[in-house]
Amino acid sequence: MEAEKFDSPFKGRSLLTWADYSPEEILQFLDYAILAKKQAHNKEIHQRFLGKTIALIFEKRSTRTRSSFETAFGEEGGHPVFMSTQDIQLGGKESVKDTARVLGRMFSAIEFRGFKQEHVQQLAEFSGIPVINGLTDEFHPTQALADILTLQENFGKLKGLKWVFCGDGRNNVARSLMIISAKLGIDFAIFAPKELFPPKDIQDLCAPFAKESGAKIEISDDISVVKGADCLYTDVWVSMGEEALKEERTRLLKPYQVNKELMAATGKENTIFMHCLPAVLGQEVTEEVFESSASKVWDEAENRKHTIKAIMLALI
Amino acid sequence: MEAEKFDSPFKGRSLLTWADYSPEEILQFLDYAILAKKQAHNKEIHQRFLGKTIALIFEKRSTRTRSSFETAFGEEGGHPVFMSTQDIQLGGKESVKDTARVLGRMFSAIEFRGFKQEHVQQLAEFSGIPVINGLTDEFHPTQALADILTLQENFGKLKGLKWVFCGDGRNNVARSLMIISAKLGIDFAIFAPKELFPPKDIQDLCAPFAKESGAKIEISDDISVVKGADCLYTDVWVSMGEEALKEERTRLLKPYQVNKELMAATGKENTIFMHCLPAVLGQEVTEEVFESSASKVWDEAENRKHTIKAIMLALI
Amino acid sequence: MEAEKFDSPFKGRSLLTWADYSPEEILQFLDYAILAKKQAHNKEIHQRFLGKTIALIFEKRSTRTRSSFETAFGEEGGHPVFMSTQDIQLGGKESVKDTARVLGRMFSAIEFRGFKQEHVQQLAEFSGIPVINGLTDEFHPTQALADILTLQENFGKLKGLKWVFCGDGRNNVARSLMIISAKLGIDFAIFAPKELFPPKDIQDLCAPFAKESGAKIEISDDISVVKGADCLYTDVWVSMGEEALKEERTRLLKPYQVNKELMAATGKENTIFMHCLPAVLGQEVTEEVFESSASKVWDEAENRKHTIKAIMLALI
Repeated sequence: MEAEKFDSPFKGRSLLTWADYSPEEILQFLDYAILAKKQAHNKEIHQRFLGKTIALIFEKRSTRTRSSFETAFGEEGGHPVFMSTQDIQLGGKESVKDTARVLGRMFSAIEFRGFKQEHVQQLAEFSGIPVINGLTDEFHPTQALADILTLQENFGKLKGLKWVFCGDGRNNVARSLMIISAKLGIDFAIFAPKELFPPKDIQDLCAPFAKESGAKIEISDDISVVKGADCLYTDVWVSMGEEALKEERTRLLKPYQVNKELMAATGKENTIFMHCLPAVLGQEVTEEVFESSASKVWDEAENRKHTIKAIMLALI
Repeated sequence: MEAEKFDSPFKGRSLLTWADYSPEEILQFLDYAILAKKQAHNKEIHQRFLGKTIALIFEKRSTRTRSSFETAFGEEGGHPVFMSTQDIQLGGKESVKDTARVLGRMFSAIEFRGFKQEHVQQLAEFSGIPVINGLTDEFHPTQALADILTLQENFGKLKGLKWVFCGDGRNNVARSLMIISAKLGIDFAIFAPKELFPPKDIQDLCAPFAKESGAKIEISDDISVVKGADCLYTDVWVSMGEEALKEERTRLLKPYQVNKELMAATGKENTIFMHCLPAVLGQEVTEEVFESSASKVWDEAENRKHTIKAIMLALI
Repeated sequence: MEAEKFDSPFKGRSLLTWADYSPEEILQFLDYAILAKKQAHNKEIHQRFLGKTIALIFEKRSTRTRSSFETAFGEEGGHPVFMSTQDIQLGGKESVKDTARVLGRMFSAIEFRGFKQEHVQQLAEFSGIPVINGLTDEFHPTQALADILTLQENFGKLKGLKWVFCGDGRNNVARSLMIISAKLGIDFAIFAPKELFPPKDIQDLCAPFAKESGAKIEISDDISVVKGADCLYTDVWVSMGEEALKEERTRLLKPYQVNKELMAATGKENTIFMHCLPAVLGQEVTEEVFESSASKVWDEAENRKHTIKAIMLALI
């Protein structure tokens, strides 16, 4: 029996962070995602993962990322195997290196969502199969590609756009948006209190990419930074496991809430709103903005699936 | 690639309760189930869910319902994604409305087994895809259709039959049997202590259906109500989460146990026994009846799968 | 639609222990495994489980056994359904007999990994479908076949080989290796402290098999027993749930560690090392041996998948 083929120059590579890929390569992934979405909307049935398997390791739970990987892989004839920390414990009874070597003998690929970037790197190093970073404390590359697709759909271009992440500038989404923007030549700003500015290492990582692409990267606690933004982006103020910080974060981040006034402060008519979800309405975004026609959060969520399918088609 | 087609007039609709369907429509579902069972027994292989996905949300665990959905969908080429409350929490971190909108962008359908009928209604309202009620505190429609199929198989007809639910008349199975009987013109009685009679709202809901179909609906604590019954049906006395009520329930329900004497009290030779399982032998049913040739509980369990497949074929 | 066929004389049988199979039959399973591995390495795609389902019941968690069953069944078009003790509780709310009868009506087969051999026997007796023992406190037959395949691959033969299990001689792996060796005429020794010698019943079970096949079975706490061994095999000293015994076991088993000296004590140049994994380096095996070219543990892990696929192809 023959599986449908999907040709790509990326077969066998891993996706740990977009920093490892060139701008041209990232745009190639974007093209695959546009194709995958078109085929889905045309209700085409493909079986391009027939005979393939992927281990979906989730140290952190997630509705969107898990649903995206499960549906994108399963509907194309592949068999994804979901493993929570109850099923597999990386670095617990068995070293990450040994687990990688075992999984590499059984699966076609591995997705890892967890805490340490080091773990996803070790999986890639020792498994011998493609490994996809489904989120770590440092990076969230599959989210970033979905967001880029959403920008592309709404503006028909990427170069010349500006978007602003409002909130905790240190988080993995903010980092990943900075990297992919720097790579692709999209102006990117973080609007955050000084206490929550991203660390210097991520800025240093992005500087040469931005220089190469012409992207302007700004970090500021002054509202004027949102001026000219085509998109305001935010994320929850308090992540899983940080509940104790709720009061302090709320105090710090209140002025960075995405609301009608902040949307107006961009000075643009057609600024869109994005959020990686789930959202806490009334905190990082008002219900008014979240439910407005400027809000593209459902397209963005849907794009998680198409971009994740594209990444899997490209690598596996 | 082309998936095998299954034509039905119900594509895109949800199944929250049989109260939303006409008698003719319910009988159409029954026909699909008879077909699905025949194909399974003929060992035919079909791939009618190729390229399709379903989210299986289980707030309450279940061997039978989960196995039915998983096997019926998976063996036809679809990819079901099982999510327990550890994987997804409806109305927790994210509102039901938002979860519905996300899942609706990724899946072909949703099954929900949980506590609140309101939640399954919201999923149907906001997801934009077919939603199937896998059991809530109010209704259990997939169980009801399996039971109707079991009646049909044993008696070759439905009209003119009489069956009696013995036990806690307020539970979701009793309610669902009342609705489907009222719709289809099958005489239905609840034999229960007055303290556990079903609430008035469900009787009011069923009254017009029964009037239309000619079904006789009775509720009584007098054993004479089982006279003429073609089937005695029961369920556990104490459901998950009600363990504290065990003593009181046992005291109340002891006289309603299905045993040899109650089977004889129907005055019929070929009365069958049904139970939605799991059973506590010696409580709601004696081992003697449960293991007798009158007991159709294993056919009934198998029919869960075929009827659930039929429902999915019809809606998705 | 037609599924690819796989002919075997074992359709419908269960695998609870290799004691139930003749040497010729076991070698037939081994041939199927060699075929399955060859097809996998040739990147052939087969869909021999199309339209089939298997319940994977895991009372004890396991990365290797679960991944093997999931990938081997899923990549051939089947739909495996993973059930942990949170999803299904054998002998809890429902008797094993009743659960067996329900699963038998819905699935094509059952895999059971748990504590009691009695439970896997009851599943086989009452379900009416093939049941595969994925490990119990007594036996671990799928591991044993993978190990036999690894021996065959390394030495091109089985007859005339000798291998030695070093460590706790009472555990399920040691028992299963003893049975399969006795059946197939492979010399097998247990090198263990007297306190951890295997019980007499397993020796009595194996004696007639060994007599028939000519296998020599030895149990000794004297290091000279490893002389002439083609393979040294070990397992963790402390299993899940036995953590309290760690100190005592370490004291007892320290002299039975597989290290460079023990490998040398075989007096053979090409002695290989095997381990069912996960390993605790520095305890039952040194890192030096584990990471040496004599170590075949990754081939052995991979062989879990191919042998499990072979067993499923043969029985289902």
